[in-house]
Amino acid sequence: MAQENLSVVLHAKGDLRLDNRPVPEPGPDEVLLQMHSVGICGSDVHYWQNGRIGDFVLRKPMVLGHEAAGRVVKVGSEVTHLKAGDRVAIEPGVPRKMDEFFKMGRYNLSPDIFFCATPPDDGNLCRYYAHSANFCYKLPDNVTFEEGALIEPLSVGIHACSRAGVTLGSTVLICGAGTIGLVSLLAAKAMGASQVIISDLCAERLEMAKELGADFQLTVTREDGAQQLAKKVEDTLGAQPHVTIECTGVESCIQTAIYATRSGGVVVLVGLGAAMTTVPLVNAAVREVDIRGVFRYCNTWPMAISMLASGKVNVKPLVTHRFPLEQAVQAFETSRQGLGIKVMLKCDKNDQNP
Amino acid sequence: MAQENLSVVLHAKGDLRLDNRPVPEPGPDEVLLQMHSVGICGSDVHYWQNGRIGDFVLRKPMVLGHEAAGRVVKVGSEVTHLKAGDRVAIEPGVPRKMDEFFKMGRYNLSPDIFFCATPPDDGNLCRYYAHSANFCYKLPDNVTFEEGALIEPLSVGIHACSRAGVTLGSTVLICGAGTIGLVSLLAAKAMGASQVIISDLCAERLEMAKELGADFQLTVTREDGAQQLAKKVEDTLGAQPHVTIECTGVESCIQTAIYATRSGGVVVLVGLGAAMTTVPLVNAAVREVDIRGVFRYCNTWPMAISMLASGKVNVKPLVTHRFPLEQAVQAFETSRQGLGIKVMLKCDKNDQNP
Amino acid sequence: MAQENLSVVLHAKGDLRLDNRPVPEPGPDEVLLQMHSVGICGSDVHYWQNGRIGDFVLRKPMVLGHEAAGRVVKVGSEVTHLKAGDRVAIEPGVPRKMDEFFKMGRYNLSPDIFFCATPPDDGNLCRYYAHSANFCYKLPDNVTFEEGALIEPLSVGIHACSRAGVTLGSTVLICGAGTIGLVSLLAAKAMGASQVIISDLCAERLEMAKELGADFQLTVTREDGAQQLAKKVEDTLGAQPHVTIECTGVESCIQTAIYATRSGGVVVLVGLGAAMTTVPLVNAAVREVDIRGVFRYCNTWPMAISMLASGKVNVKPLVTHRFPLEQAVQAFETSRQGLGIKVMLKCDKNDQNP
Amino acid sequence: MAQENLSVVLHAKGDLRLDNRPVPEPGPDEVLLQMHSVGICGSDVHYWQNGRIGDFVLRKPMVLGHEAAGRVVKVGSEVTHLKAGDRVAIEPGVPRKMDEFFKMGRYNLSPDIFFCATPPDDGNLCRYYAHSANFCYKLPDNVTFEEGALIEPLSVGIHACSRAGVTLGSTVLICGAGTIGLVSLLAAKAMGASQVIISDLCAERLEMAKELGADFQLTVTREDGAQQLAKKVEDTLGAQPHVTIECTGVESCIQTAIYATRSGGVVVLVGLGAAMTTVPLVNAAVREVDIRGVFRYCNTWPMAISMLASGKVNVKPLVTHRFPLEQAVQAFETSRQGLGIKVMLKCDKNDQNP
Repeated sequence: MAQENLSVVLHAKGDLRLDNRPVPEPGPDEVLLQMHSVGICGSDVHYWQNGRIGDFVLRKPMVLGHEAAGRVVKVGSEVTHLKAGDRVAIEPGVPRKMDEFFKMGRYNLSPDIFFCATPPDDGNLCRYYAHSANFCYKLPDNVTFEEGALIEPLSVGIHACSRAGVTLGSTVLICGAGTIGLVSLLAAKAMGASQVIISDLCAERLEMAKELGADFQLTVTREDGAQQLAKKVEDTLGAQPHVTIECTGVESCIQTAIYATRSGGVVVLVGLGAAMTTVPLVNAAVREVDIRGVFRYCNTWPMAISMLASGKVNVKPLVTHRFPLEQAVQAFETSRQGLGIKVMLKCDKNDQNP
Repeated sequence: MAQENLSVVLHAKGDLRLDNRPVPEPGPDEVLLQMHSVGICGSDVHYWQNGRIGDFVLRKPMVLGHEAAGRVVKVGSEVTHLKAGDRVAIEPGVPRKMDEFFKMGRYNLSPDIFFCATPPDDGNLCRYYAHSANFCYKLPDNVTFEEGALIEPLSVGIHACSRAGVTLGSTVLICGAGTIGLVSLLAAKAMGASQVIISDLCAERLEMAKELGADFQLTVTREDGAQQLAKKVEDTLGAQPHVTIECTGVESCIQTAIYATRSGGVVVLVGLGAAMTTVPLVNAAVREVDIRGVFRYCNTWPMAISMLASGKVNVKPLVTHRFPLEQAVQAFETSRQGLGIKVMLKCDKNDQNP
Repeated sequence: MAQENLSVVLHAKGDLRLDNRPVPEPGPDEVLLQMHSVGICGSDVHYWQNGRIGDFVLRKPMVLGHEAAGRVVKVGSEVTHLKAGDRVAIEPGVPRKMDEFFKMGRYNLSPDIFFCATPPDDGNLCRYYAHSANFCYKLPDNVTFEEGALIEPLSVGIHACSRAGVTLGSTVLICGAGTIGLVSLLAAKAMGASQVIISDLCAERLEMAKELGADFQLTVTREDGAQQLAKKVEDTLGAQPHVTIECTGVESCIQTAIYATRSGGVVVLVGLGAAMTTVPLVNAAVREVDIRGVFRYCNTWPMAISMLASGKVNVKPLVTHRFPLEQAVQAFETSRQGLGIKVMLKCDKNDQNP
Repeated sequence: MAQENLSVVLHAKGDLRLDNRPVPEPGPDEVLLQMHSVGICGSDVHYWQNGRIGDFVLRKPMVLGHEAAGRVVKVGSEVTHLKAGDRVAIEPGVPRKMDEFFKMGRYNLSPDIFFCATPPDDGNLCRYYAHSANFCYKLPDNVTFEEGALIEPLSVGIHACSRAGVTLGSTVLICGAGTIGLVSLLAAKAMGASQVIISDLCAERLEMAKELGADFQLTVTREDGAQQLAKKVEDTLGAQPHVTIECTGVESCIQTAIYATRSGGVVVLVGLGAAMTTVPLVNAAVREVDIRGVFRYCNTWPMAISMLASGKVNVKPLVTHRFPLEQAVQAFETSRQGLGIKVMLKCDKNDQNP
């Protein structure tokens, strides 16, 4: 095995470096992975630019990256379901304790969960990385590494749509056509939504949403009133949507989400904005419109893999840029500028394919 | 049958009168009821004092009252499950259309539902009243008329706890120890809650809550910070509650409700305050604390009757005042002053028993 | 309006006639429909051949037909959401009472529900038919009458998959590739199933299943053992399916369904066979494999219409034969012989299009 | 720490011995427990008498016992939530792998779960025992060790009632008034059931059920027909029960359970009988009566402890016999003869209190 382990390390706010770190040794229930494709997430860029997200503060150098797929090169002594050579997608969150949340199937809420590239836990934007084997999922031959890496953002969309209860014939409003809005669109359609309307400030993003299957696009401006937009949504669909997936975190959009949703429906908050938000809570309450948040995801990898393998979900168009790992800083800069949708880093020198 | 039908009619804001109205003739699927006991609800007082609640505006004289029980005196031609002499509790909301909400079992959300004493629909604070037989539920011999009338407020508590998912071993915070807080307490305990902590500004109300089974009482002041109160709740219970039932509608209480609730738990909004509310929505979202409203109730009468009949729920202590129908104005004044908990009007001249 | 109302009337077991019946007058909440397309269901043929299905016994002449779509020609006095000229699909079951089942959103379980062509209720295989307006659903322009008529069998598949909890990434075994197996396949795929394996004795039916989207076909013989077949299913999918939809009613198939389904999964019984069945109940119980039945459907028309309108579900290939209403006996004979899949009767002399 | 570790060891079918085994050393995430009270379960007796239960076959000597509570005497290096001296109840099933079942909150279905006294895993009928700390739950001061031990059988009742969806106002039929029937009764009442009817062949058992809160007792004979018994249940309750908890495993009782349950309701199979069972599956299917099994339990200890601590559930009357550990053989013989309800073994020489 190569001794070199080039890693994208955030040393401090604004201080992103390519370091050579030791190749880790997998623990008994871990696998050592040769990383192949790792997407850059908005949170990676945010840590780089701000050194923190909310209460998560960078206090020591941390490897970035958590949208990842790679190849098993070594298995720990207790690992039985994977072997060297297996191509896997990595679920970045691994519960450390069998606490009440884990036992109830909501391990994402476990307060001391390990999570790649959330301080102080190292991510996997590097050549070699060891991870809990139970949270590595074998990819079928017809699913590429990049698709494997994209399961992470796709999982946010799946979890949001699951929490929303999207099912056959659901009509859905998605606020925001960035990466998370787009994966929510893909998930909603795959779960049986009959009509999805998606809104954004940016016409280009809406164009991409259209290509990915959105039935209606709604270009909004910062001046639009929340109730007025809600009315537009209703007029476009012919009825209020059953579900709204709010992916912007902007206060006025959350207001629109509440006004727009049908009585008895659900608003899912995916985008996060200011800590305190002023919203028409009474409007939601008296119409029994539930407001549900999402924290990452749980139990999504197996279903995502099966959907990719069956061809029912196509995430490939999301990748708009690729850089070799060595050019990570340039890749981060591209992502920071908001160019394209997903920037993918290619960690395997000998295989830069999708 | 008596021709006299003394009725408590709100003619306009502040103008409450006792009118003699014609005794109605029941339609084919209706029953004519001789009213026995009708509780005064905060909404009755609110219409009297303000002439409106939100978008519901009094535009013509309306009989008040919707917490009611009476005796069947005549049945419509198509009614088969009730007969003259039956003692019944009245569910005041009757869907007019078999619309999508009714078909899905959430008829309370049906936009054109008939509802007693919500303009323009007449209530049942009178001697004789005709109602859909399907929404009259026969009372067992061991359930009094007053208990039957109290099923209406109790239903709010049941619906709130159902929406919250209260189950065996749930720990529950209830904000506000007024009538709705107290019936939520009764419902939560009957559904298996192991610990209920209830908060209020008023020590007397908390004393009543204690008598009704609250495990902990928390006296709050207007100066308490939301996060500080949430901490007190956690300290008292030894852990954050799974569920919070917010019955005040006060902004700071809603904030407390969110901060206080355990990750993965539920806040139910029962109390209604200002249209726009400033709340820590991100705190709820990232901990997957769901925020759910309630609009009245549905499917609660049968279970309420069975709980009353089995003696597992005791609502009798809620009645603190009784007046004969003729003294309705005095009864409303008592209710307006917030004296006691529930003021009951006795509509049957020959039977003023509970 | 035409005075003639040619109707397919079953007078007694084996005695099927074309009678001219009076055109009905719609009641206040009904619409009068000019029938366009009506599919022949296995139950129609069964009543014809046997005069009964279980406890439902033909005791007086009854119009057959319940898979139907037509055009509104007259509306009752209280109907507001439909008008003459509207094209509608007809939900054949209309609850007569607001009983506990209806109030809870499971009106299909209402014991005294009206249901087309279930004795003694007349069906709609005729020129003119009056039906509850609340159970007629307007068809968008891009959904044909025949698609509208096919919503009835499709609803069985949707209800079965809903009861099964089919969702994103579900793997599904369907036993039986007749009409109900095929619509279950369509519904499962539309609800997000990643892999569907379907079994049948008949290779032709499996071929049709393949065309409609089945991922795997399993030809079975009457000699196959239940556990052996279950093993084949697991081997084919690489794991046991989450869900099995049993559409044959054959005892050995129900046994296979139980053995085949993954622990924690669901077997839905759609096919009905002998009253008493010998099954490995302990095997299901200790693996928490739920066994759930379906009785018709509820709340499926709106979602079915939206799926047809969006093009996500294609039922058109199911129609293999068409006959004008006048040739109903010949059409029934075709259906009885099991030729093709769905035989459609065209009731409108002036429009025999799909 | 004492070096002696007297243990109740089953060497082979019929060969039960008291051996002295080494005191185990707790692993990093384990605690060493000084056992206090361990109940004898029917399965313990069954292994003793038969050497196997279904596919679980005794192949080497195994310590019996899995209804247990004890005191922590030593904690592993990674244990933080327990300390020496803590009194704990032991959940006997500990998942070995973070597999799909564990991740989804149904760890009881995990195929390679460790389970006390299920071959080949040793139980805890001994002086000293090491167990996963995550599956030891601290007992409040007001909950006795014996109550802690009884959480195991109580958990079966809780899990059964949870799977059944017992909630406020549910009416429940319980078939069988043995230990499992009785704990199901306690759980059902605590979850809000308004009426519970319980059936058994044995009048004495029904008497105990009455003392524990059953509303109705139904003495049955082996000659009673299933439909006839179902009718009796309906007549007694005034309506069919929403839920039936079948605790006998007898074929005719399972038939009664199906016939007796209300349309749309649930039959839970707790008792296990012959592998193949002949049942009226069509009757269940067309009335959408779900048939659900239970395999042990999951996520029940915390709620059970809170119910015991709050005094809402009283399991103390279940203990009818107590023996010191040294008299284990006599205790097993008492249990085998079906005398009383629960036989408790007292493992701590210095504290034989409840």
